[in-house]
Amino acid sequence: MPEPTLAENDIIDRIQAAFPERLDLCTFGIGDDAVQLRLPFDVVTTDTMCEGVHFDRRFTSLHDIAFRCLTSNLSDIAAMGCSPGPYTLSLALPTEGYTRAEIDQLLAGLVDCAKAHGQPEWLWLIGGDVVRSPSALVLTITLMGSSAGKRVLRRSRAQVGDLLVVFRPLGASALGLALLQAGRGDLAPQAVAAFCTPIADTALGPTLAQCPAVHAAMDLSDGLLNDLPRLLKASNCGAELHLERLPIAAEVRAGAAQLGLSHLDLALAGGEEYAILAAVSPDGQEELDAICAEHGRDLLPIGRILAKPGLRYFFDSSQYLPTSSGFAHFPCRDLTENT
Amino acid sequence: MPEPTLAENDIIDRIQAAFPERLDLCTFGIGDDAVQLRLPFDVVTTDTMCEGVHFDRRFTSLHDIAFRCLTSNLSDIAAMGCSPGPYTLSLALPTEGYTRAEIDQLLAGLVDCAKAHGQPEWLWLIGGDVVRSPSALVLTITLMGSSAGKRVLRRSRAQVGDLLVVFRPLGASALGLALLQAGRGDLAPQAVAAFCTPIADTALGPTLAQCPAVHAAMDLSDGLLNDLPRLLKASNCGAELHLERLPIAAEVRAGAAQLGLSHLDLALAGGEEYAILAAVSPDGQEELDAICAEHGRDLLPIGRILAKPGLRYFFDSSQYLPTSSGFAHFPCRDLTENT
Repeated sequence: MPEPTLAENDIIDRIQAAFPERLDLCTFGIGDDAVQLRLPFDVVTTDTMCEGVHFDRRFTSLHDIAFRCLTSNLSDIAAMGCSPGPYTLSLALPTEGYTRAEIDQLLAGLVDCAKAHGQPEWLWLIGGDVVRSPSALVLTITLMGSSAGKRVLRRSRAQVGDLLVVFRPLGASALGLALLQAGRGDLAPQAVAAFCTPIADTALGPTLAQCPAVHAAMDLSDGLLNDLPRLLKASNCGAELHLERLPIAAEVRAGAAQLGLSHLDLALAGGEEYAILAAVSPDGQEELDAICAEHGRDLLPIGRILAKPGLRYFFDSSQYLPTSSGFAHFPCRDLTENT
Repeated sequence: MPEPTLAENDIIDRIQAAFPERLDLCTFGIGDDAVQLRLPFDVVTTDTMCEGVHFDRRFTSLHDIAFRCLTSNLSDIAAMGCSPGPYTLSLALPTEGYTRAEIDQLLAGLVDCAKAHGQPEWLWLIGGDVVRSPSALVLTITLMGSSAGKRVLRRSRAQVGDLLVVFRPLGASALGLALLQAGRGDLAPQAVAAFCTPIADTALGPTLAQCPAVHAAMDLSDGLLNDLPRLLKASNCGAELHLERLPIAAEVRAGAAQLGLSHLDLALAGGEEYAILAAVSPDGQEELDAICAEHGRDLLPIGRILAKPGLRYFFDSSQYLPTSSGFAHFPCRDLTENT
């Protein structure tokens, strides 16, 4: 006999069991029409992930689906230079429903994601909605955060002459997915982990926000080629990108080669990096090196902000036209305007 | 030539145009990784609506789909006795995308919903996410609100002897949907409006919260037969429901009769009423009558809170077993335990 699927009320019971009331955070627990916070949180972000678009259950467990959805929100809050707070979860479940074991896997993904990010004090599921989806699983997390009254990092403050930097190698998540799809996850376990259980820069973000040399920042979630133009548009400037400088781990280069993929394309177009891209003053290198040392990260310059709008690519000083584009949810006409 | 569908960035542009930055509410507008609020909001709710489950585009326009999704959130905040604040919108759009006209219809539904609720000062779209759905439209709104430092209404504070009351007739929304499905919307235009553009008790809720005679409250969204047991469970008590007292408008009785439906079933099981159900002290009638007069509502007792768990139904003093159940997203085993 197959295990029965849970009724809505039973699902809410499981959520309450995994996330018992935190009276230090809310005046009461999950289960009313809304939740009341005891503390003020001044930043908000939301991210939705849909089965068949953002994930494929053949390659991603329910545990990892929930883990990744929470990380994507954590990354947005980190890129603003803020600390994560409480969140709501909306679960639209397939018509046939989920068993208790399946619901518990989803919830364990949220619990493990918080642990993997050092269990931030106020990161806690405080409410949500459980509904039936017409087809496949859709998760929406809305995460609050706190600036602690300090400066937040914006996309729109890049200055001409700034260095474009990232703080860790790129392309691992995209390679991880490609490996899983090819049934060759064994080739690069770290890349598979980068895809399945990605870690946002939850601690690095708030430190960067307090460094005056960091002018602008954003989170890389749709691929550098999609995301960088958004920072440039917000800052009303252009940039040059030096592709030979893109930091790509040896494991990613080797794995890409074994699959016949371009490691450059993975680093340029790969989505769901959940890494921070920043525009920093060239004078701030010393201070930034110290921050990176403190957080076990590297300061990795990949380009420079220019006054002239548009994005120009160079490879070893020659102009270059990438062959791939970042992940677009809909046909993205903007990209062609950036050449 | 068919009108082109919009790219993700173009959709965000339309949202920014419909909801320009409000520097009194946020430190900057839509378009960064997260948004920063200037004011504290201490309550949060979230509601998801899926095409094929919560709505059918044959009977509901994009305008009304967005309107209803916002109302469902407003109703949760109202039932807590709080005032609505800013909200985020997550749009998972069908693969083929939406045209500019379609996106503008969705956004107009949000704008018109706020107007229909008296344009609450802090009710404003401040951020969100736009993604591709594997099949059909999925909307998630996360709405913040404010208790203004005053008492919030809980589900869990009903007391034995309390009257169960509603403040307006029931069943109109369910009849409206049934009429649209039957192609007979002309029979009861008010019921159709109650379904298409429902109004939450945004002003009534905070007033009720300041009336000590109101012990507990919740919002009716899945039908009285589904929702009332939740209030009883939270308050650890039972109730008797007097079905002959259920307030049902003459238009709803007549429309139900013409479709061969039971008006009682519509009032008992009809979802998406977005009305407040409350447990009130029998001593508070005078005060509550005054509140109702102020808000153009009626005090409509439908039952009584009992110590013994479970829900008992009466019709003209005889015990009665309803033929229909409230809307359950998944098979809801709890209902059978309440007889």
